[in-house]
Amino acid sequence: MEPSPQIRRAIVLLSGGLDSATVLAMAREQGYETHTLAVAYGQRHLAEVRAAERVAQRLQAATHRLMQVDLAQLGGSALTDPHIEVPNHPTSGIPATYVPARNTLFLSLALGCAEVLGAQDLFIGVNAVDYSGYPDCRPEFIESFQNLAQLATRTGTEGGRFRVHAPLIHLSKAQIVAEGVRLRVDYAETVSCYRADDQGRACGRCDSCRLRAQGFREAGVADPTRYRDGRVSSAP
Amino acid sequence: MEPSPQIRRAIVLLSGGLDSATVLAMAREQGYETHTLAVAYGQRHLAEVRAAERVAQRLQAATHRLMQVDLAQLGGSALTDPHIEVPNHPTSGIPATYVPARNTLFLSLALGCAEVLGAQDLFIGVNAVDYSGYPDCRPEFIESFQNLAQLATRTGTEGGRFRVHAPLIHLSKAQIVAEGVRLRVDYAETVSCYRADDQGRACGRCDSCRLRAQGFREAGVADPTRYRDGRVSSAP
Repeated sequence: MEPSPQIRRAIVLLSGGLDSATVLAMAREQGYETHTLAVAYGQRHLAEVRAAERVAQRLQAATHRLMQVDLAQLGGSALTDPHIEVPNHPTSGIPATYVPARNTLFLSLALGCAEVLGAQDLFIGVNAVDYSGYPDCRPEFIESFQNLAQLATRTGTEGGRFRVHAPLIHLSKAQIVAEGVRLRVDYAETVSCYRADDQGRACGRCDSCRLRAQGFREAGVADPTRYRDGRVSSAP
Repeated sequence: MEPSPQIRRAIVLLSGGLDSATVLAMAREQGYETHTLAVAYGQRHLAEVRAAERVAQRLQAATHRLMQVDLAQLGGSALTDPHIEVPNHPTSGIPATYVPARNTLFLSLALGCAEVLGAQDLFIGVNAVDYSGYPDCRPEFIESFQNLAQLATRTGTEGGRFRVHAPLIHLSKAQIVAEGVRLRVDYAETVSCYRADDQGRACGRCDSCRLRAQGFREAGVADPTRYRDGRVSSAP
């Protein structure tokens, strides 16, 4: 599938969470024809996968794909192994929710999509501020993957130039929320909680819930998150 | 799972073909406790996946894993898209059997396995001589992935050192066969054909079959390949 020269296609990794929904809106504003990719990797929060579909539809992605990879058979993370507990409090060092090689895998799948669709731009919602504990959310990781993409592909060999965009990497959660609100992202559609139930309702206690709530609070925006305890939104 | 200091664990990517079987035997000879990983990616030759299991068992891998990733939904390769024909003759440039981002994806999965199992050595049977058309079989790709692995992981961040071994990268097919014969690899167990049938019998006509047959011939070794036309082995 060869895109016409006017169309710039981008692959946007979509988790169904707040960050990647914002990234999708940003890519769209930049004029890309967006093709979204969600990965079901055996995570506990399958509600995220359904949220990704809704977000893709709302933000008018040209296509949406769901790929399955069973990382649960490897385990090694609180997100894929039911025997490892999701922590309620930030820890020093790399959190138990780190999934070995996850972003490397996600970007590999996005790269495969990109080559097939004739896209050279990959978007990923990693953030080095709130999750500085995750090694694969750092700028040096992103840069290294971009170099790899160049060497790994037919496109790179034939003179194409891959770019890995991580537009949130240096933003605070409050800045991300402010950007999303400006771009009219409906955050009620998104699910960030590591322990979300089947309806996508949040626990309100895990790291991800805390960071999200704090982001809305600091941005002065009403929190549209649906919590399990019945709280529907919190005033800014 | 923390390995004892005496045990050096390695993840070996196993396709079920001749090359990766040889790599497994080499890793074992070097004293690694080998953990094999096969990936079912929607390729046409599922017989390879079954061959990988047999090879892992014969060469006494400590564990064997099969992971599924549906690259067929992306297409873009003669190996994953039934509408693209497997070529019978070598072409100039990158062959139609190139699968976008395949080795990047395989190494990502191997990296995830490695972190969970406490291994820092990854083995992959890429070869730059026979398949110089594949960008992700070149030494610069392997080196780039090794750098990425360092940045992408908890292990790398905490001072571990990943090594990506590609011991076949500069060998001819004949040299690979000779090495495997020395290490008593049973090549009758392996399937290289891009069009293998369910019993793992080879077409004898695709690029992969040609290279394999040539390798046995040049190494002066009887070819144990089972062909669909009934030919069982060819004398050297």
